Amino acid sequence: MRGLMQEWPLLCHKIMDHAALYHGDREVISRSIEGPMHRTNYRNIHERARQVAKRLEKDGITMGDRVATMAWNTWRHLEAWYGILGMGAVYHTLNPRLFPDQIAWIMNDATDKLLFVDLTFLPIIEAIADKVPSLAKVVVLTDAAHMPQTKLANAVAYEYWINEADADYAWREFDEGTAAGMCYTSGTTGDPKGVVYSHRSNVLHAMTGAQPDMLNLSSNDRMMPVVPLFHANGWSTAFVCPMVGASMIMPGAGMDGASIYQILTEERVTMTAAVPTVWLMLLEHLAKVGGSLPDLQRVVIGGAACPPAMIKTFQETYGVEVIHAWGMTEMSPLGTVCTLKPEYKNLTGQARLDLQAKQGHPPFTVEMKVTDDENNPLPWDAKSFGRLKVRGPAVSSAYYKGHGAEQFDAENWFDTGDVAHVDEHGYMQITDRAKDVIKSGGEWISTIELENLAVGHPEVAEAAVIGIAHPKWDERPLLVIVRRQGCDPSKESILDFIRDDIAKWWLPDDVAFVDDIPHTATGKIQKTTLRKQFSDYKFPGT
Amino acid sequence: MRGLMQEWPLLCHKIMDHAALYHGDREVISRSIEGPMHRTNYRNIHERARQVAKRLEKDGITMGDRVATMAWNTWRHLEAWYGILGMGAVYHTLNPRLFPDQIAWIMNDATDKLLFVDLTFLPIIEAIADKVPSLAKVVVLTDAAHMPQTKLANAVAYEYWINEADADYAWREFDEGTAAGMCYTSGTTGDPKGVVYSHRSNVLHAMTGAQPDMLNLSSNDRMMPVVPLFHANGWSTAFVCPMVGASMIMPGAGMDGASIYQILTEERVTMTAAVPTVWLMLLEHLAKVGGSLPDLQRVVIGGAACPPAMIKTFQETYGVEVIHAWGMTEMSPLGTVCTLKPEYKNLTGQARLDLQAKQGHPPFTVEMKVTDDENNPLPWDAKSFGRLKVRGPAVSSAYYKGHGAEQFDAENWFDTGDVAHVDEHGYMQITDRAKDVIKSGGEWISTIELENLAVGHPEVAEAAVIGIAHPKWDERPLLVIVRRQGCDPSKESILDFIRDDIAKWWLPDDVAFVDDIPHTATGKIQKTTLRKQFSDYKFPGT
Repeated sequence: MRGLMQEWPLLCHKIMDHAALYHGDREVISRSIEGPMHRTNYRNIHERARQVAKRLEKDGITMGDRVATMAWNTWRHLEAWYGILGMGAVYHTLNPRLFPDQIAWIMNDATDKLLFVDLTFLPIIEAIADKVPSLAKVVVLTDAAHMPQTKLANAVAYEYWINEADADYAWREFDEGTAAGMCYTSGTTGDPKGVVYSHRSNVLHAMTGAQPDMLNLSSNDRMMPVVPLFHANGWSTAFVCPMVGASMIMPGAGMDGASIYQILTEERVTMTAAVPTVWLMLLEHLAKVGGSLPDLQRVVIGGAACPPAMIKTFQETYGVEVIHAWGMTEMSPLGTVCTLKPEYKNLTGQARLDLQAKQGHPPFTVEMKVTDDENNPLPWDAKSFGRLKVRGPAVSSAYYKGHGAEQFDAENWFDTGDVAHVDEHGYMQITDRAKDVIKSGGEWISTIELENLAVGHPEVAEAAVIGIAHPKWDERPLLVIVRRQGCDPSKESILDFIRDDIAKWWLPDDVAFVDDIPHTATGKIQKTTLRKQFSDYKFPGT
Repeated sequence: MRGLMQEWPLLCHKIMDHAALYHGDREVISRSIEGPMHRTNYRNIHERARQVAKRLEKDGITMGDRVATMAWNTWRHLEAWYGILGMGAVYHTLNPRLFPDQIAWIMNDATDKLLFVDLTFLPIIEAIADKVPSLAKVVVLTDAAHMPQTKLANAVAYEYWINEADADYAWREFDEGTAAGMCYTSGTTGDPKGVVYSHRSNVLHAMTGAQPDMLNLSSNDRMMPVVPLFHANGWSTAFVCPMVGASMIMPGAGMDGASIYQILTEERVTMTAAVPTVWLMLLEHLAKVGGSLPDLQRVVIGGAACPPAMIKTFQETYGVEVIHAWGMTEMSPLGTVCTLKPEYKNLTGQARLDLQAKQGHPPFTVEMKVTDDENNPLPWDAKSFGRLKVRGPAVSSAYYKGHGAEQFDAENWFDTGDVAHVDEHGYMQITDRAKDVIKSGGEWISTIELENLAVGHPEVAEAAVIGIAHPKWDERPLLVIVRRQGCDPSKESILDFIRDDIAKWWLPDDVAFVDDIPHTATGKIQKTTLRKQFSDYKFPGT
């Protein structure tokens, strides 16, 4: 027996229809790439997004074509997204921090036909455009007055281009399983892999993200996504905010502490989201100028584990609640959020901070398990750690062109590549990447836990742990340390510092000092490179 | 191009899986029909719901079979719902307040095979069972010790019955468009019509309902649905609460002011929902005993327009925020909720109360328009009123067996039968039922607005306005009044009381006094009967 409810496909552009009708005056404020602040609202974005859609059709873009964007968070980027997906094409966000060759590889893999690009990134595209034969047109996100000289033959200023179409355009209607967007994972090994979001997955994910125990977003919020739209589907902010009618404050290219502080304050931002490095810069700036954050209520921190000291500073010094979150490009991206259930609501002091250092619990629509190498589920006891696997309507079922098929099993469980444990109330904590975890005598040692402890040493600037082959134990941990400027800690003082907080057999067999630790384009420690660097290393006495 | 995200059908029983895993200890507390309070949690409900599913299969129930419930809100009713839908059958809630013949008619229309019934309602079923040949078994929601003598041949006590199966049962998986539940509308005219919810519509609706600008439900809430599960899909509470992990406080049969006050207080309820008549009884009781509501934060009021005085008393006397809401059985049921957007957030005093008297704004997934009789959309100016039409994934596309097809148009717009206006920010206010509105000289007069004004008169207990044929104006309003006990207001004093608040031509042509006004089983004014009663009436001088 079938239900007798309406066929009403979950299409992303219906979100902007809703925003324009019910939250039409709500502000979308951007720091423009040209410099001045820019103010618009959902009614205008809705209007201009339909102009984009109509104009794209004039350029020969059709259903299913990939249209790339390489841009900061601004109103124009938002218009472009909705214009692209509203005519059935696929927005494809490019990460400008990748190496130019990688970007060209990705654009060719996706066969991008048209590109929206910010002034900032035009030089990158000028350098690689002739390696991307599918790219027929480059729309520079600026007006005619700011359009620079360019050697690109098919470049045009956005404001000129968009005005060659009016807004008399009806969104296309199609099946909700249709592709809406693409984002490539920036793996630390191998070629990037394309994740393809559907309209359904984006809409369901935004409906999940808005909920009180998730981002808790309402029409009374003034939300600033510092996390760029090109980072993991923009953490869904481009869909959640208009869905609930929250104002959007777009920081453009201003990622430094002073710029973030200025826009937070002047635009009375109530909620914001970014990776830890952005907040480090902000907190350093705040400490320097003696600033305060009277309007800001909540900050979502994800993309990398949030240092406990950062949680403490935000909450205790500035009165801003930290919401630690975890997700992946393949998960649309929210997986878990560390809001406090009643079991933990009354925690205070260090116990509360310890809990908030966990990545949190998943909402309805995200299934999660941790397993051993034989796919047996492990108990949720906050200590048994294993491979973290997830499932849900906004989780990838495959990568573009079938790459990376080994990460998906027959029951749809996606292997995140993370290693984690879960507690009795479903709070997950990442303890490692699966390829980094050290297998010593058949047991696993978490490198992240060792690193977190080591950076607590006052003379340590950065720490990384890698496994080194060992004749008896298979692998043993080596602790690699970058010293704080002007400091010269001994190996013993560092090992002594962490000794009491770990099982005896977790203690690294040696400490190595280096001048710096290699990082990926997105700021993660590049352990593959580090392991190569230490490929000839042997532990003393082996 | 297709998205590459997982097939993960939106099935209602996944909600209970999530609740059991991530909110397993969260309490579900009920006032049992037998008397004492009963405490359980989502882990146990999940367990017993699977017992119900397995036991139903033993009884020969299969995919698509209708299984009826006639029960108050208790843990057993909740278990039954999930057990029924988790094996692919269809829960069918029966409203015990309907006339027995209507109930039998509905059970036959749905061809119910099995019924779960509370002790309270067993006499109703005993009286009609032989008129429902499809009904093979009656499960009485009690234990063996409380099982009464009954003339029903196939009756069994729930606790005995459920223990004939264990919980070793895997939910069935099927397409999300599969029917999950049924609820008949209690129309004021004609036969009841069956609404058939799908798994998809119930899940999407719960995801919408949880959002901050809707019910704003989190795992820290202790939610008491006073609105019965048999009233308009239980206002979705059976899905929203476990989805977010809110505790459920179930009032059982205790609907009087004293019982509601006791459970609100003893169980520290933070949020509750019911029709205005329940709150009238509570407020009367509170005034009498001098009670207070320290834990209660929010009360959702719907099912009928909330009197402005009630909003004021809750907020100003008891510090409880009122959330006025509107919906329909055909809408799963939430349509609009009157939470305050930033444009209205700072309203105070009477202006705030006036705003809160509106039914509110729709969330994403509910589309709405008001039209004239020729289906032309009317402006959103807070005064142009017309037929209210809605659309969305949790809105009916048809009634069971195709009845009432005239309410659905080719573009899926469902004619609610209500007459309303909408303001510039999308706040809707119901002004009438379409069949009650008075058409005078080609213009519409709102009977509800006139009634609301008239009941403000200190000597008026209840008021109803109906249209009476008029030789010149087609129809003119007649104001029908029930006087407050011991009062004897004049016609002129009542008309004078409302005169200044309405357009001159809205003033009723006459006032008629009656001893009482007829009501439907669900407490609505039965204007059809009233119109019959006054069918021979003529205005003075016509």
